[in-house]
Amino acid sequence: MKFICTRENLNNGLNIVNHLASHNANLPILNNVLIDAKDGIITLSTTNLEIGIKVTVRGKIEIEGSYTVPARLFSDFVSLLPNENVDIDLETDGLNVSCKNSQTQIKGMLSEDYPLIPDVSSEKKVNIDMQTFKEVLSQTVFAATLDDNRPEISGVFFNFKGQDLTVAATDSYRLAEKKIKVDGSIDQKIIIPLKTLQELGRILANSTEKNISLYLNENQVAFSSSNIVLTSRLIDGNYPDYEQIIPSDEKTITRVKAEDLIKAIKGAALFCKTGINDIKMTIIPSKNEVVILSTNSGLGENITNIGAEIKGEEVEIVFNYRYLLDGLNNLQSEQVIIKTSNQGAPGVFVPDNKEGYLYIVMPIRQ
Amino acid sequence: MKFICTRENLNNGLNIVNHLASHNANLPILNNVLIDAKDGIITLSTTNLEIGIKVTVRGKIEIEGSYTVPARLFSDFVSLLPNENVDIDLETDGLNVSCKNSQTQIKGMLSEDYPLIPDVSSEKKVNIDMQTFKEVLSQTVFAATLDDNRPEISGVFFNFKGQDLTVAATDSYRLAEKKIKVDGSIDQKIIIPLKTLQELGRILANSTEKNISLYLNENQVAFSSSNIVLTSRLIDGNYPDYEQIIPSDEKTITRVKAEDLIKAIKGAALFCKTGINDIKMTIIPSKNEVVILSTNSGLGENITNIGAEIKGEEVEIVFNYRYLLDGLNNLQSEQVIIKTSNQGAPGVFVPDNKEGYLYIVMPIRQ
Repeated sequence: MKFICTRENLNNGLNIVNHLASHNANLPILNNVLIDAKDGIITLSTTNLEIGIKVTVRGKIEIEGSYTVPARLFSDFVSLLPNENVDIDLETDGLNVSCKNSQTQIKGMLSEDYPLIPDVSSEKKVNIDMQTFKEVLSQTVFAATLDDNRPEISGVFFNFKGQDLTVAATDSYRLAEKKIKVDGSIDQKIIIPLKTLQELGRILANSTEKNISLYLNENQVAFSSSNIVLTSRLIDGNYPDYEQIIPSDEKTITRVKAEDLIKAIKGAALFCKTGINDIKMTIIPSKNEVVILSTNSGLGENITNIGAEIKGEEVEIVFNYRYLLDGLNNLQSEQVIIKTSNQGAPGVFVPDNKEGYLYIVMPIRQ
Repeated sequence: MKFICTRENLNNGLNIVNHLASHNANLPILNNVLIDAKDGIITLSTTNLEIGIKVTVRGKIEIEGSYTVPARLFSDFVSLLPNENVDIDLETDGLNVSCKNSQTQIKGMLSEDYPLIPDVSSEKKVNIDMQTFKEVLSQTVFAATLDDNRPEISGVFFNFKGQDLTVAATDSYRLAEKKIKVDGSIDQKIIIPLKTLQELGRILANSTEKNISLYLNENQVAFSSSNIVLTSRLIDGNYPDYEQIIPSDEKTITRVKAEDLIKAIKGAALFCKTGINDIKMTIIPSKNEVVILSTNSGLGENITNIGAEIKGEEVEIVFNYRYLLDGLNNLQSEQVIIKTSNQGAPGVFVPDNKEGYLYIVMPIRQ
């Protein structure tokens, strides 16, 4: 194998794939990045056996071939090189890398031993607007949890029905649900592992692409955008029938500035006992006020009164402040609408500026 | 005690003092900040018994008094308040804090139990230009080390002689020395604890003051600037006679771009074996080149050739790359001058653009 590419292209590619490579005592090659130069295309790949990422890098191939080198080392090394051309040349004792005034040999392992990343080329395909898809990730993924006993909630539910996609995540104490339209049509319910979507979120953070494509087969999903393909297994099992816990009989509707509410909750959180995250939210229609209170015999107490528009009955509910903050920080709306019924029922939080998203927090019974 | 101040002034003051407050099982009050309102001045203080910090905050005192509250809690809480006036009112059950739409009670401890921070008012005083003093801190403190067996090198040596101040720090593997002029005159040699200077560096980072004053008595030092006073004990003992290890018989003088050298060393560092920090620097006058090399039977090897101006003999020295990077990152000069004699002698690194600073690294004998 022998090729030339720019340091910038190589560096960008490595930054996308290197995060997934990791130490694995049983299969040390998983620590490596697979470099493959074939048919005019240079591909960098890493996998942890559950997720695989491939990225193509522009360059000029002189001799086809492939090899694997430690991903972290190679990536750290390339990041230090000057912005010039990088010559890559595989010799018997390792990968020779030359750039301007430096010559480096990196020892690796043969590519034959690298696990195959499955190719999900399927007729089941939809395109999703990138900005909308990033919003889906940021508004749902945080609500899922890694739970060995309940693998189905260690992932995020994607329910495709024609051009409608409903995405839901829960850890059974709170639930986030987002509905969007997709370009294309699939009818299938899948559960995508939390870690896959976290990795995807990381990779797409700086993406300026307009769209992302999603491909499905029986037990694999692939996301593709620009020069990147991420492939992942799906989680077996049935997602809990979460829709039944979404309350529909609210007795009070409150509209309040999200930032004011967040600051009040953070202030109250400081006065929670260690390990106890209870804060009390009192909604008072007669005063048009939401009162956030936390009290602690050791530290003191904190009360904040926030002006609000309220319709309905007075209600007092205790919530875990962490769950409230998670949701409020991801609403992406200046004003939040809070729908409540009684102190034993979940609170529903929706943005004021956009349809299609809701966040539910279970109350803490006193 | 009862006073009003702006949230901004209170927040700035707390950000300066709160870092020093810490959990102490024997003396829980050290976790607190002392708030003192007297003679028209509001003072916030914290101490860890070795270092004390006082900062004055502008405000309007209605009733004099003092009290202590948990520093971290109070500081986190004030940082969340809106930029309005804050009313502080001591009642029997704690400190009442009102700001706009929030009412908070913080339980604390009586100020009578708070340790006294000594007052170093002394005739021994010098003024130091703030920018110069920050440079002294950034160029020396990193070279000291916390060593229980050698308390004298767990601090930084300040040698005052008339208007000359020489500051030195070493961990016995490398040495940093900075010479500056001060305004005023003292003849005294002192050792200031590393932690004191780290704390001072943190506090002064955002300071826009022109000068800092240093006061000395037998076993205490105080630094004063604007509304802040930091007081510290001194370390007993004699500082090692370090001047004898500064080589004066260099056989080779090399001038090289600091950034190029830093990048080459970082690249070579990636190829060091875990726990071994050796890299080889070869200075070749005939080629006007500095060659940085690291080799590792497991990972591979890295060689970078850097163009340089060299006078003298060819020399090859092995250094610990961490010590080199520490010094080079703090030179504050585009070009570095390296003075070397042989492979068993220390290397001397000085900035090209300014007198008064030198950094010495001991070689690793092979």
